[in-house]
Amino acid sequence: MLDRLRSAARRVQGDRAVRALLGDCRRLLSARGEANSPAIAADIVGQIDRLGDDQRLSFFEHLAQDFGPDVQQVLDAAQAYAQAPTDPQRLLALTQAAEPPRQELFRRLNRTPGGTAAIVRLRRALLERLPKQAPLATVENDLLHLLSSWFNPGFLQMRKVDWNSPAQLLEQIIRHEAVHEVDGWDDLRRRLQPDRRCFAFFHPQLPDEPLIFVEVALVPEMAAQIAPLIDKKSQPLDPAQFKVAVFYSISNCQPGLRGVSLGNFLIKRVAEQLKRELPQLKTFCTLSPIPGLMAWLHKAKDTFTTLPAAAGESAAQALAALRKAAGDELASLGTGAGLGALPEAGHAALSTLAALYLVHASPTPKGDPVARFHLDNGARLERLNPRANLSAKGLKQSAGLMVNYLYDLQRIETCHDRFVHGRVVHSRAVAALL
Amino acid sequence: MLDRLRSAARRVQGDRAVRALLGDCRRLLSARGEANSPAIAADIVGQIDRLGDDQRLSFFEHLAQDFGPDVQQVLDAAQAYAQAPTDPQRLLALTQAAEPPRQELFRRLNRTPGGTAAIVRLRRALLERLPKQAPLATVENDLLHLLSSWFNPGFLQMRKVDWNSPAQLLEQIIRHEAVHEVDGWDDLRRRLQPDRRCFAFFHPQLPDEPLIFVEVALVPEMAAQIAPLIDKKSQPLDPAQFKVAVFYSISNCQPGLRGVSLGNFLIKRVAEQLKRELPQLKTFCTLSPIPGLMAWLHKAKDTFTTLPAAAGESAAQALAALRKAAGDELASLGTGAGLGALPEAGHAALSTLAALYLVHASPTPKGDPVARFHLDNGARLERLNPRANLSAKGLKQSAGLMVNYLYDLQRIETCHDRFVHGRVVHSRAVAALL
Amino acid sequence: MLDRLRSAARRVQGDRAVRALLGDCRRLLSARGEANSPAIAADIVGQIDRLGDDQRLSFFEHLAQDFGPDVQQVLDAAQAYAQAPTDPQRLLALTQAAEPPRQELFRRLNRTPGGTAAIVRLRRALLERLPKQAPLATVENDLLHLLSSWFNPGFLQMRKVDWNSPAQLLEQIIRHEAVHEVDGWDDLRRRLQPDRRCFAFFHPQLPDEPLIFVEVALVPEMAAQIAPLIDKKSQPLDPAQFKVAVFYSISNCQPGLRGVSLGNFLIKRVAEQLKRELPQLKTFCTLSPIPGLMAWLHKAKDTFTTLPAAAGESAAQALAALRKAAGDELASLGTGAGLGALPEAGHAALSTLAALYLVHASPTPKGDPVARFHLDNGARLERLNPRANLSAKGLKQSAGLMVNYLYDLQRIETCHDRFVHGRVVHSRAVAALL
Amino acid sequence: MLDRLRSAARRVQGDRAVRALLGDCRRLLSARGEANSPAIAADIVGQIDRLGDDQRLSFFEHLAQDFGPDVQQVLDAAQAYAQAPTDPQRLLALTQAAEPPRQELFRRLNRTPGGTAAIVRLRRALLERLPKQAPLATVENDLLHLLSSWFNPGFLQMRKVDWNSPAQLLEQIIRHEAVHEVDGWDDLRRRLQPDRRCFAFFHPQLPDEPLIFVEVALVPEMAAQIAPLIDKKSQPLDPAQFKVAVFYSISNCQPGLRGVSLGNFLIKRVAEQLKRELPQLKTFCTLSPIPGLMAWLHKAKDTFTTLPAAAGESAAQALAALRKAAGDELASLGTGAGLGALPEAGHAALSTLAALYLVHASPTPKGDPVARFHLDNGARLERLNPRANLSAKGLKQSAGLMVNYLYDLQRIETCHDRFVHGRVVHSRAVAALL
Repeated sequence: MLDRLRSAARRVQGDRAVRALLGDCRRLLSARGEANSPAIAADIVGQIDRLGDDQRLSFFEHLAQDFGPDVQQVLDAAQAYAQAPTDPQRLLALTQAAEPPRQELFRRLNRTPGGTAAIVRLRRALLERLPKQAPLATVENDLLHLLSSWFNPGFLQMRKVDWNSPAQLLEQIIRHEAVHEVDGWDDLRRRLQPDRRCFAFFHPQLPDEPLIFVEVALVPEMAAQIAPLIDKKSQPLDPAQFKVAVFYSISNCQPGLRGVSLGNFLIKRVAEQLKRELPQLKTFCTLSPIPGLMAWLHKAKDTFTTLPAAAGESAAQALAALRKAAGDELASLGTGAGLGALPEAGHAALSTLAALYLVHASPTPKGDPVARFHLDNGARLERLNPRANLSAKGLKQSAGLMVNYLYDLQRIETCHDRFVHGRVVHSRAVAALL
Repeated sequence: MLDRLRSAARRVQGDRAVRALLGDCRRLLSARGEANSPAIAADIVGQIDRLGDDQRLSFFEHLAQDFGPDVQQVLDAAQAYAQAPTDPQRLLALTQAAEPPRQELFRRLNRTPGGTAAIVRLRRALLERLPKQAPLATVENDLLHLLSSWFNPGFLQMRKVDWNSPAQLLEQIIRHEAVHEVDGWDDLRRRLQPDRRCFAFFHPQLPDEPLIFVEVALVPEMAAQIAPLIDKKSQPLDPAQFKVAVFYSISNCQPGLRGVSLGNFLIKRVAEQLKRELPQLKTFCTLSPIPGLMAWLHKAKDTFTTLPAAAGESAAQALAALRKAAGDELASLGTGAGLGALPEAGHAALSTLAALYLVHASPTPKGDPVARFHLDNGARLERLNPRANLSAKGLKQSAGLMVNYLYDLQRIETCHDRFVHGRVVHSRAVAALL
Repeated sequence: MLDRLRSAARRVQGDRAVRALLGDCRRLLSARGEANSPAIAADIVGQIDRLGDDQRLSFFEHLAQDFGPDVQQVLDAAQAYAQAPTDPQRLLALTQAAEPPRQELFRRLNRTPGGTAAIVRLRRALLERLPKQAPLATVENDLLHLLSSWFNPGFLQMRKVDWNSPAQLLEQIIRHEAVHEVDGWDDLRRRLQPDRRCFAFFHPQLPDEPLIFVEVALVPEMAAQIAPLIDKKSQPLDPAQFKVAVFYSISNCQPGLRGVSLGNFLIKRVAEQLKRELPQLKTFCTLSPIPGLMAWLHKAKDTFTTLPAAAGESAAQALAALRKAAGDELASLGTGAGLGALPEAGHAALSTLAALYLVHASPTPKGDPVARFHLDNGARLERLNPRANLSAKGLKQSAGLMVNYLYDLQRIETCHDRFVHGRVVHSRAVAALL
Repeated sequence: MLDRLRSAARRVQGDRAVRALLGDCRRLLSARGEANSPAIAADIVGQIDRLGDDQRLSFFEHLAQDFGPDVQQVLDAAQAYAQAPTDPQRLLALTQAAEPPRQELFRRLNRTPGGTAAIVRLRRALLERLPKQAPLATVENDLLHLLSSWFNPGFLQMRKVDWNSPAQLLEQIIRHEAVHEVDGWDDLRRRLQPDRRCFAFFHPQLPDEPLIFVEVALVPEMAAQIAPLIDKKSQPLDPAQFKVAVFYSISNCQPGLRGVSLGNFLIKRVAEQLKRELPQLKTFCTLSPIPGLMAWLHKAKDTFTTLPAAAGESAAQALAALRKAAGDELASLGTGAGLGALPEAGHAALSTLAALYLVHASPTPKGDPVARFHLDNGARLERLNPRANLSAKGLKQSAGLMVNYLYDLQRIETCHDRFVHGRVVHSRAVAALL
């Protein structure tokens, strides 16, 4: 009984907090607030940070409902524009009418120091809610639109991360590395030796927080295995032997920036910088996981049917060959059991299946996410490497198979264009597997 | 004949350059261009910088005509939205349809290092054309919209400018000072001594170029004359005597950012910083010119009729008194001739006229621009100072009269709000003049 | 046989290298070398770094024998000076004759970038040899003289070390911490939180290498136990509660600078800086080990006889009391066994013995080195803390006893002066123990 | 009468100040002062800066008389050393006895921030007194000895000075330029364009004060005239045409460092840096004044007799030829009058005289100071340029003649060695003049 009363009291108090916050948001948008907007914005940022989960949800709902375009104004402006599309005033009226007022609200929040960080945090909280709360998507669209403009690569600073970087930054690198976990400071130290590089994007408003970083190995030839690249006991290579730059890991650090294009720009800027510094580098490629492969195979009944007829047939044959070689037990490959004894024919079948998966599924939304990222960036599907990652994660995802995507800066525009039109540019070696 | 041929050839070549540039703009906006956009953007920036005047005009015209919203799409999206305003997809479709594609074009140009600077230069060139080319206003609106978002005060860095600043920066300060001309390096040096301060806004993308700067004098009481503040021979004041911070000059450095709100934010950030550093500062005010006063008086026949009846009558009386005191020769005051001999009654009449002008004309677009700037910022009209600026410019503009606007950080929101609603908040001293 | 030949060949080659090096040293000192000295110095630095151990010893021997003052010149100059001590030329001749030429050699080596670091390395190598090779002391004296002048505190930069410092610097802190070992990066991180501080001295010529660093805990009262200060799980304290700054560790990083006074200056500069930053700090003290206590007790028969009569008697009584309380087994205390069960009387006896040791033995060269360091710096012997350090090292050195030395900046000159004259200034609490 | 009393009172007060200062100096040197030396040093620095001229002189006299080596100690130590020169303790005792205690005093003064600057100021004041007060030379020797060690080129930082440097630094460059006066900021600006360079030495303890700077012109061939190099209206040269680096001005900024070798090291470090940056530079030379030429000619009767017989004869003939050509009026050349009409034969005679002067007089202390500086640095006398400097100063010093000294980094050691032994290395062109 008492509990219910308390909870009711809390709710009332929470409602009051949200109402006050919304009042200040309207004040910030008003003509009156204009004169004092950085101070009001600072105050609002503080209020938002103090909201409980329920209140924040309520705040999002109000942003969605109360800060959208006015229906009648939109209709009027659209018609006025249609009648005289060359009249600057009418176009201005249209764009202003169609822009949700919350965009201007967010822009004004950004006037206070710390505003940008607060908006990134806000979107992070919103994205956690989103799958359950579809109407909030409209707020999310506005945030993504603004953050894409503000985290434009022209505004980002690329910095080398090395052993001279501040410990607090390196700690974030350890925490955010999402592909090949960093096993403590010694491991990180090895990854920052002269034959390993790490670069990150930073935004002037978040100077101490990396947005995204990429790790690169400088090696004599295109890498076919991940273990040597991340072996913390390995000896640094002599720079005279650097021929190939292998991007072996790329990790986002800011969940609130999901969907803002960063990795694409980072990889290319790193490639350019390395080329300038080390003209002997001739090849820029990745050594990437295929996180969706085993799941795709396990659902072969469904997934194969989406392939073109000839490809579906090849897939079926390869799967049969793989089953035969692996003792009819696909799942075991995902644990590593049986992989040691898998005959060469089994690996060939596995590579063929991977090639079919990457070539045919990647252009669809259900394709392998890593493949989609690099192919959309304009990379070429270059080589499949069996037994490339024998860690538990690597076995589970793709029975140890990894893939090299090749970044040829002269061809990325063409490759990307093909990909946008549903075709995956690949090497002859991959073609031979199909 | 030959000349005409040559000029025709140049035109053809110019047309070709514009066509090529427009082609690249479309490519940058295309899906295909996405993969390589920083490189394409860099290329486009170079092309724009090489355009001749006529070609640039032609480019602007194409931006206005070819990169606007599609009329039918806008209408459809507006109606679809009106039918289901809570559907996020429909709102998204509407805002996308209503946003001119050239906005996205400018955002993508910004992906290359130097893109921001190029866009600022582009707008500068456009503003020079604008009065003659009204349809281009639509392009201008888009540029202003984007630049306001990117030069948001949250993204700007305020830096103190002093005698330790790089010479190349100080040289820009000398060049751009627009209110009280800097008479060489010695003059500047005096303006950067500890009892004079200078602060500027910078943008991370234009690190060596000040956007706007303000000059401040720290003095024992609210200044009534400009000469002592800019006397390059004067002795620096002991910090123990600092009581009042007088903003005596504010100058924009980037014509391409005209209309982007900067000065308002700069003055307030400077006031906050000075308050933190020197808690003994109790008053923050300006000593400002009244550039429109004499022109307004010279057109008294027209301008007085726009005043409220009582005010118009007061103005007429004051003008008569002034004429009497000044020997019926108003124009002479604007040259300084006669000002020396002007009896006290004449100065009182002049002050009354100025008070009427500032209080009644400022809220209208034709009001004094300096007054409109400070009053819109939320400052209060505090005091009129006769014989405050005896330079040729000061005499011409306002017969030597200057005005203090007071920034009371606790009241700027109220003052601004009043001003937006047509009323000028003023001190009792000013009220007494009315 | 072959081995002997090889070794002989190596020796010959080595002799040649030393001869070449000595030739270049003479060239650097010659008038001829003056014009090109930085280049010659750079060359010599390289040669020294390539010497083997035996060759380096041979080089040191030559420095000692061949680069000393000329006997006859010294005698002549001394007599000439004695005859006319006010003649500037004669004094100049004397100081030049008496200064070993190797000092000028070292000064010229210092003309090349990296020269300072090379000289510090040279002295480090020399100090390792020294105990066995007394005649080399003469070279050592010269190096110490020059390094004391060059690493003068006026030339040193004090920097705060914190979690924003470069990882490579923090790694050096971990490696060089000599008092309370740092247990990995997490431990270090805790020691760099706002209630723990770390400051180091740097020299402009060795910008990446700390020379010495001190660790400080900011706490509410004078610490009586070390464990809470270095507990890596502890919660940071609120700054409002900082009252006392406890210097709990000081470590040298450069063996080549042994004997150059650094710690004394560092502690005082840190105290001044903390006082400025945190005026609420009222007390600056240490929590220090007593590394010589148990060894002194174990040799009680010999060591007690060096005490003044009354003190010797007190010591004997206290030792008897301690033996009785500890079950006659002193050694066990040094291992922690028995310490748990030691009755209060035993701890009192131990404290009395420590007080006698610190007060009477410290002014002699055989006294406790930590005590001698702080007392010579002008600190006061303030408090003895039983059960303060229960680590194996703490038990072995002093049966867990630790001591606070108090730095009262107003009194350090007096305390130091007393200490120089053989007396240890101590608190009443310590006096009560004697 | 009253005046005399007042002056006596001032003297008594001054004496008291000097006595107090000397007391503190002794305290700083004492064992007691050791514990607190930075604070005592700071106090002494303050006292010294407040001394009046007479008091400072008195202070210097006491430093000379009271802080020198003890005669008996010196004799004893010298004899003890002579008896056992390999005993490290005896050598140590000797060097300590022979070193004036004021050296240690200055080293301890250096322990306070600002100590180095204070010692440089002290020496500056001393040098101003020196010619009149010979016994003070002994203090001067000690200061020079220490400052030479502390301003060792290994401790100096070379920085490029350009238009991005702080205005306060550039202001010092304008003030200290001693060879070709800088005519305001525009002139300086031209001298910092890409085809003109300026480099300065800085010491970490005086970070804002240049010690010495050199100005360099990058040109297509060895310059024969100064005017084009310092023409502030000239157009910057394209870097592709840089072939020769001409050091056309070198100026000291710190009178207190007179006699400390700086210029020699600066020129060579600049040459190395330019060579690295611009490998196309093949020649490094000066275009230097001959400040002593006309004075030498005017005293021909005396000066010619110091030349070797043959040279003396040549000089006499050339002088006769010059007189004939110049209309018997030598002095007029020094004012420019007559120089315009001087026939080629006159210029040839003038060049011959200059060559004789530079080759034969430079190795002696009375030689041309600029020549002595460059030749001692190891430069070669390369070319004489008539009509090279037509400014009043250039005409007065050398009738417009200037000289190129060539820095060939491979040969400076040889050239310097020859110069030390009395011979001036010169080019064939110069040989032809002799």
